[in-house]
Amino acid sequence: MDTITRLDLRSQRNLTMLVDFYELTMANGYLNTEADDTIAYFDMFFRKIPDGGGYCIMAGVQQLIEYLTNLKFTDEDIEYLRSKAIFSKEFLNYLANFKFSCDVWAIPEGTPVFPNEPLVTVRGPVMEAQFIETMILLTINHQTLIATKAARICEAASGRPVMEFGSRRAQGYDGALYGARAAIIGGCNATACTMADELFNVPVTGTMAHSWIQLFDSEYEAFAAWAKTYPDNTVLLVDTYNVLKSGIPNAIKVFDEILKPMGKRPKAVRIDSGDIAYLSIETRKMLDEAGYEDVKITISNSLDEFIIKAVLENGAKIDSFGVGERLITARSEPVFGGVYKLVAIEKNGTIIPKIKISENVEKITNPGFKSLYRVYDKKTNKAIADLIALNDENFDNNKPLQLFDPNYTWKKKRIKNYNIKNLMVQIFDKGKCTYESPSVMEIREFCGKEKASLWSEIRRLQNPHQYYIDLSKNLWNLKESLLHEYSSIYEE
Amino acid sequence: MDTITRLDLRSQRNLTMLVDFYELTMANGYLNTEADDTIAYFDMFFRKIPDGGGYCIMAGVQQLIEYLTNLKFTDEDIEYLRSKAIFSKEFLNYLANFKFSCDVWAIPEGTPVFPNEPLVTVRGPVMEAQFIETMILLTINHQTLIATKAARICEAASGRPVMEFGSRRAQGYDGALYGARAAIIGGCNATACTMADELFNVPVTGTMAHSWIQLFDSEYEAFAAWAKTYPDNTVLLVDTYNVLKSGIPNAIKVFDEILKPMGKRPKAVRIDSGDIAYLSIETRKMLDEAGYEDVKITISNSLDEFIIKAVLENGAKIDSFGVGERLITARSEPVFGGVYKLVAIEKNGTIIPKIKISENVEKITNPGFKSLYRVYDKKTNKAIADLIALNDENFDNNKPLQLFDPNYTWKKKRIKNYNIKNLMVQIFDKGKCTYESPSVMEIREFCGKEKASLWSEIRRLQNPHQYYIDLSKNLWNLKESLLHEYSSIYEE
Repeated sequence: MDTITRLDLRSQRNLTMLVDFYELTMANGYLNTEADDTIAYFDMFFRKIPDGGGYCIMAGVQQLIEYLTNLKFTDEDIEYLRSKAIFSKEFLNYLANFKFSCDVWAIPEGTPVFPNEPLVTVRGPVMEAQFIETMILLTINHQTLIATKAARICEAASGRPVMEFGSRRAQGYDGALYGARAAIIGGCNATACTMADELFNVPVTGTMAHSWIQLFDSEYEAFAAWAKTYPDNTVLLVDTYNVLKSGIPNAIKVFDEILKPMGKRPKAVRIDSGDIAYLSIETRKMLDEAGYEDVKITISNSLDEFIIKAVLENGAKIDSFGVGERLITARSEPVFGGVYKLVAIEKNGTIIPKIKISENVEKITNPGFKSLYRVYDKKTNKAIADLIALNDENFDNNKPLQLFDPNYTWKKKRIKNYNIKNLMVQIFDKGKCTYESPSVMEIREFCGKEKASLWSEIRRLQNPHQYYIDLSKNLWNLKESLLHEYSSIYEE
Repeated sequence: MDTITRLDLRSQRNLTMLVDFYELTMANGYLNTEADDTIAYFDMFFRKIPDGGGYCIMAGVQQLIEYLTNLKFTDEDIEYLRSKAIFSKEFLNYLANFKFSCDVWAIPEGTPVFPNEPLVTVRGPVMEAQFIETMILLTINHQTLIATKAARICEAASGRPVMEFGSRRAQGYDGALYGARAAIIGGCNATACTMADELFNVPVTGTMAHSWIQLFDSEYEAFAAWAKTYPDNTVLLVDTYNVLKSGIPNAIKVFDEILKPMGKRPKAVRIDSGDIAYLSIETRKMLDEAGYEDVKITISNSLDEFIIKAVLENGAKIDSFGVGERLITARSEPVFGGVYKLVAIEKNGTIIPKIKISENVEKITNPGFKSLYRVYDKKTNKAIADLIALNDENFDNNKPLQLFDPNYTWKKKRIKNYNIKNLMVQIFDKGKCTYESPSVMEIREFCGKEKASLWSEIRRLQNPHQYYIDLSKNLWNLKESLLHEYSSIYEE
């Protein structure tokens, strides 16, 4: 064990059996019906942006890669499955020798993404491509949910640092760890989750709890002991008894009596309860009057994007925010509804597109093997629209591009002077990983640039302008023709 | 690796570094200030029942035990911490030789619990007792949240089986796995999470996705292939195209043409979209008319306790429910707000109670080293009230018990013919585990009995009767006297 690091252990984690049981019953069924050599194409996509926002932030690809790399059934797994007495011997044998062989494409982490766009596309033998559904959804749904929420909260903080403080209220250990990872990707500046720093090399932060104060005979003594321990980085929690009558006066006393003689400047005070607009304004005055204009005020009390926006509008004097449970669980909308749908099958080399129809028009899928393009204005570098196209289509940015609304096709737009970028990258080629993830801090930086390519109307927290997501003419035609094939189902 | 099972790997998982960074800065501070030999008492408790319910279900103790058993800093962890350049050499040395030595008490999993009751109590050197805060909260908050939600959903289903189907929308891998565990404890009959069965030996279930249907040239062929593969357990998903015009007619055709000649009876049909009240009623009629009165109808479409209750009131003909995202994330209220507060310190063998005051009266803590008792009526075996008392108090059920409301002390109740049970069990004695967890299915059974000991007025989903949580006279007196000591803080 000594030479295996926590990161090794983590990235070698075998999560093969974290799978909905029906993926196994279906796989056994495919083998039984000899449909197992069918090549299937699946898309992962979502239909709705949480919290009525204007965009989502893709996250989780690195963990998806680790999962797929470690896919392997152990002897113990095979024995367990045998004990269920419903799987054929042939199938259990297949699992024992299982080797992942699919092609996988994904949108890189940190990219803003929109409804109905393929985030992940899988091509391969139906048994494999179906089997990995549960974990693709679990991985991407979770991290995209949290990265998206973090982006919203950082947007509200308008450039002030935001720290992720939610581990204790996360939904499980991975909820805390990968939630912290996703929060950093979405824009947070630091996390309190130590393991996230150890594994992903992201800024970690932490000071004291109320219990530190309570353990001493007085607040002053508690503050003094802290300042002596951390003279270069003194941050004091000032709301254990009463912020303005006790916490700030004691803090100033410690700054004067302990730090000043050492030639040290305090860093910040933290307020964790009460009316943060009022308390921060009064605290600012008291600190300034005492000559501590450079001491920051940090706030951490059940915050989210709406409270942050509201208190800043109230004139709150806050330099940074610690955000806990409402970020790490995406409390206001804690489910990211990504789905994984069959979009085509391949028989004897021919791709046969498939569509999932529904009485709910917005639940009808985009058929076929597709790519996703983003079109940027050449002058402003702002994103104009996304274009979902069939995989074999090509676009030449020397020619004008004709876009149209897939629902109201008379709404057309002719675009010149644009750049067009294929957003999907191949991450697995016949089962072999072909992509190396950037570091989390690199992804965060990339995300920052990509967010900046969106017009601020798209980034607005509520009632944002809807970003254009168009279909290519070929894809639109294909979809229409498949819908007409099924139209008899809607007849009464 | 061959002789180490997944369960071994799981229960040996070292989560030591999954800790808020401030636990480490505080521990380093305690050592620096020589407060490290102080013995501290901490309580974990919560203040509010989610969803306005009448009770919560305790869960997560087994995972807490595993965490505490595996607490150990590796060389790599020490190196990582050294690189932060804020921890003393003495402290890093202490961590390298860290050995957990606390006493820990907890409420057994599956027990109904109520606000302000100690769920976990820790006694030990302050550095250790403080350090484990993050993981105690993370573990118990998560599983108690999901077990509580599951209990509500099962209550709404009024005895019909409920299956947990949420892995793909869970918040991280442990969110899926331990969420499934907690859902079973709270009352679910099965889960779709294969790993949960493999590790915890709980019923697992699964049939087919819409993609199975789509992969075949027709719905009939897809159903036929399934029935041939699983003739003893045929469950068909009937909503891919149109439940009443396509799904049910094709299902009946397959029952008649494939299963009947084999002498087999189909098990069920599953509906995953549309108006489930209407569709289930019409489906029931069609199945009955075709001679399949024994074939069950199972439903799975963004369900929660409110929808289940509503459709059953509509006369829906549903035999079982599959519940996904709204259970596994406790979507309507996805945060369980457990907190961990210092309640006493011990110096030279004397316990000094501590209180955390707040301008918010409901946030004031119960001081001291405590126990939790449940009082049952001898005749009905129903729970009458819980009594939070100091640890050294004794109760004799041969004598009448005087209870009073801690806020309105004139509201008194004198109880005779009662049984009184100490709910807390010691799980660690000076760092050694002294408790063996029952199996998950045993906990589920225990939970069922304990829920039955609550009056149905407490179990009501909305506006339940508030269960009585009283303080002993000694505890009440202690709390009052500590509050008076601090009363100057409230003076203007």
